[in-house]
This record gives sequence, structure tokens and C-alpha cells, in this order.
Amino acid sequence: MNVLHDLGEARRWLDEERRRGHRLGFVPTMGSLHDGHRSLLRRAAATSDVSVASIFVNPLQFGPDEDLDSYPRSLETDLAMARDERIDGVIVPSTEAMYPEPMKTLVRVEQLSTGLESLSRPTHFDGVTTVVAKLFNLVGPCSAFFGEKDYQQLAQIRRMVSDLSFPVEVIGCPTVREPDGLALSSRNAYLDGPQRAAATVLSRALTAGIEMIAGGESSPAAVEQVMAATVRHEPLAELDYAAVRDPATLDELDTIADRVRLLIAARIDTTRLIDNADGRHSLGEYSDET
Amino acid sequence: MNVLHDLGEARRWLDEERRRGHRLGFVPTMGSLHDGHRSLLRRAAATSDVSVASIFVNPLQFGPDEDLDSYPRSLETDLAMARDERIDGVIVPSTEAMYPEPMKTLVRVEQLSTGLESLSRPTHFDGVTTVVAKLFNLVGPCSAFFGEKDYQQLAQIRRMVSDLSFPVEVIGCPTVREPDGLALSSRNAYLDGPQRAAATVLSRALTAGIEMIAGGESSPAAVEQVMAATVRHEPLAELDYAAVRDPATLDELDTIADRVRLLIAARIDTTRLIDNADGRHSLGEYSDET
Repeated sequence: MNVLHDLGEARRWLDEERRRGHRLGFVPTMGSLHDGHRSLLRRAAATSDVSVASIFVNPLQFGPDEDLDSYPRSLETDLAMARDERIDGVIVPSTEAMYPEPMKTLVRVEQLSTGLESLSRPTHFDGVTTVVAKLFNLVGPCSAFFGEKDYQQLAQIRRMVSDLSFPVEVIGCPTVREPDGLALSSRNAYLDGPQRAAATVLSRALTAGIEMIAGGESSPAAVEQVMAATVRHEPLAELDYAAVRDPATLDELDTIADRVRLLIAARIDTTRLIDNADGRHSLGEYSDET
Repeated sequence: MNVLHDLGEARRWLDEERRRGHRLGFVPTMGSLHDGHRSLLRRAAATSDVSVASIFVNPLQFGPDEDLDSYPRSLETDLAMARDERIDGVIVPSTEAMYPEPMKTLVRVEQLSTGLESLSRPTHFDGVTTVVAKLFNLVGPCSAFFGEKDYQQLAQIRRMVSDLSFPVEVIGCPTVREPDGLALSSRNAYLDGPQRAAATVLSRALTAGIEMIAGGESSPAAVEQVMAATVRHEPLAELDYAAVRDPATLDELDTIADRVRLLIAARIDTTRLIDNADGRHSLGEYSDET
């Protein structure tokens, strides 16, 4: 497996692979890989001639009071997982390699970057779309694999790719969960025992919403209230939002239509967690909504 | 010469050329081609294996009160010029092909997009950098040729390419002028006889600034005053700005250093014209400053 710290070297390698007619699969990550990432790596390796991941904790997408410095880093085990999944190369640029000068350029997806996550993380998505645009330019034409866990991010990247005609096929992959329903997240590492138990409240709230919809509820507000009430019953959790939205545009809905996405965010002590689900399928049941 | 209205077809053609190892030269334009564009086309054809131009009047870069509808269009003579200059292909997308959905994504270069042109055209550069990012993604790895005439635009595109790692080499080409100094511009077509005569005031103001600097003047404000006074002596002209700036960052200067750019904008009746020059060289003398 190639481990590439130099971006010029990475680009030359990938250009050469494409020149040979090889189709590229790309998994951009911030490292601290868990089984959710593993599912992306596995899919990239299985469906591409050449598979490449990137590991880069992107300062642009952290707010000033967020956890950039404490964000978990585990390069050796990350590389071991990539090797395990038969990834052909991992790009591990330094911050200086990615941003040799202060970034003056930003890529912003309007509307999709407002509301939900943006209320508590106002500059987060500009940082995500900007770094993903840069990574796409470095990697070149490819299929790119993203988890549905970061659903608003996925919707924005899809829109950015379509609006700006990136030569990239975006593939959303289902969220991987612990047996008790907790969505895998690098930030789960922050949780102690009681917090870890409380954290299942996010998936429990999603399930409560899904069951209401299955029972015929058509009012988004009613479903949001039940999701919110589920979180409020958990003493260690503080709700950020519980939302019922259009899966593609993330617009609010007047009534629950055929396709609907449930999204939730809550703080467990100081750890902020997010989760989401197709409102028409039980959690864990695979759906390919967007 | 290929004339391509379909973006998918254009991409397939260019991908195939690159697969054969051909190096691409790209000249993005809004059509209404004059001898300034001709110099870009000629340079692209001379230095590339395959040369391609695009003609697209980009609505995103026109403000609501600007001349989108009346902007001069001359597709047949444009294509004739491209043929003349042995361009291999011209991409002529419709607005619907470029923007099948309302654009939600914008690419913005901070700082470089404020001041100067942005004061009277606040959304102009976001429109330019966004469409150029899209065109770069459609055309793929290439050398791209831009005129120095739109200097602030060129500075932004350079910065965007560097910040976002586009696989593009940006090549700035010197402004082409009429014998009396007027910089070629598609908007010169709007000028009647007396206005056309008055329009030389922009290049005369630049020359006045250049001569002051050659004479040892080191105060940016003093040079700006003389440039402004030159415009004020022309009854048909109304000054927008006369500025002495750093050539790369377009920042204001405390004192005139080795490298300096003079920039000017004025209205001749309703036609807004811009021009700029290396402050260390006479107009028309070639410089390769950035």
C-alpha cells in the first residue's frame, strides 16, 4: 500500500493509474477510522480498479471553540485498517502541504449549508466543501464514497459536484451502527460508560419517528415533537435539533411525503453527536434514498 | 474544428485527447471576440497539442442592472476567428446546459474579490470564479489562457487554482491595445465617435502614472491623484477608481516598491471601461509580472 505524504507524488501516481485505464475509488476521511469508514473502504476496494483514501484533519471545518486539537488521531491503526481492506494508497498530507498559504478561496453550497448543523456550526460546511473540492482536484476523476451518517454534508457534496461539474461520482453509503443502534462516530471515543449508554437516545428518537410515520402520521411537527421528547427523557442528553426534511433539498416539509429524512443532533455532556435515517425504513434496514 | 454544444460530448473528446498524451490549451471567453482574444487563441494553439476555447455569456457574473441582455454576441465571426487561429474545438454551451438547476454553489476568493471592481460590481467575481471552476472541471487538466486586461479577475483565478489545487496552469497574457492606447474590450462596441476618442483617457492616465513612477515618485497617493486628475480633465469620462496596488495580492501599498500595478476604471457615458498596467513598464511594453 502506498502511503503518500506528498501531494504532487499522489497526483502523479493517480494520473498514471488513470492513464492505464484504471477506474479510481476515493474515500476522503479525517482518520480515526472506525467500522463506518471500514465499510466505505471495503466498497471502494471492491468496486474500483485502484482505491485511495485520504486522512486529513481539516482545520477549516472546525469552529474556534471546537475540538480540532483534541480530535482523535490514530494514524498507525488507520493505515492498518486500510491495508486490511486492500486499499492501494493512502494520502496523508500535512496541514502545511494542504494549506501552504492562508486559504482565501471558499466553496459554499447555499441553502443546504443553512439550518440544522449550521446553526451550531456556522462555518463548518464551508470548510468541508472547500477541502473536498481541493481533494477532488488533487485526486481527479473518481468515484467518491461518503457515509450517510453526515447526511447534510453528503447532500452538499452531491450538490457541489453537480453544480460545478466535478468529474466525480458521489456514492452515499449507509450508516454503520453498534448493536444497540448507536451510529459509529470518531467522537464516540469521548464518551464514558453512562454517556455511552445515554448516547443511544439519538437512534431511539429516530426509531420513534420512523414508527410514527409507519403508523400513518403525516405531520412533520408531530414527528419532530416525539423525537424531541425522546431526547428530553434522557437526563444526560441535551437536544440540539430534531428535524423532518426533504431528503434531497433538506427543505422543511408541509406534510410527510413518500421520501422523508429524519435528522437529529444532541449533546451528551460536552460531546455533540448527530444521526439521521430514512423515515420510511427501520434503522439498520438498508435504503438507497438519494 | 469541433463545435460542441453538448458538455458531455466535450468532456469525452477532451478526455480522449488527454488519454492519447495530448496537452490541452484552454481559452475561456464570453464570445464577441476581438484581437485581444485572438492573441490568447494564438498562444493556446501554438503551445498546446490540442486547443479548445469556450464561448459562454455567463449570467452569474452580471449584476441585475448590468448589460447581460445587450452584451454583444457574434457567434459566427467568433467561430471564424477560432478557425483562423487553428483552434481544434470550441465549446458553446447553452445557459440551460451550464445551469440545468439554479446554482446553489459558489466559489469565492476572499480579499481579492473586495475593493476595486467589486465596489461597483459586488457579485461579479463570485460569478466569474464559479463559472471558471465549473469550466475547469469540464475541460480537465490544461493550460488556461487569460488576458491581463481583467487583472483583478486574473489574480483571483490564479489564487483559486492555487488554493483549490486545480490541475490547471494559468497563463496571463498581455493586454492588446489600439494604436492610440485603448485596451481592446468587447464593450468598446458601445462607444460612438466622441466617446471612442474620450476612452483613451484610461490608457493616458496609466501612462501618466507610469511616467511619475519612472521619475522617482514613491507615493501611491500622489500617483493615484495624477491618474484621477487625468480622467477628470476628460469631460465625457467619470472616474470610478484609480489605484496603485501590489500586483499579486492587490493590497494597497504604503510606498511604491519594485513591483506595482496601476488599475483604473471609468465610465464613458453609460459604458464602464477598465484598464491596468505594470507601473514599471511603458504601456505596450511586454512585462510578465505575476
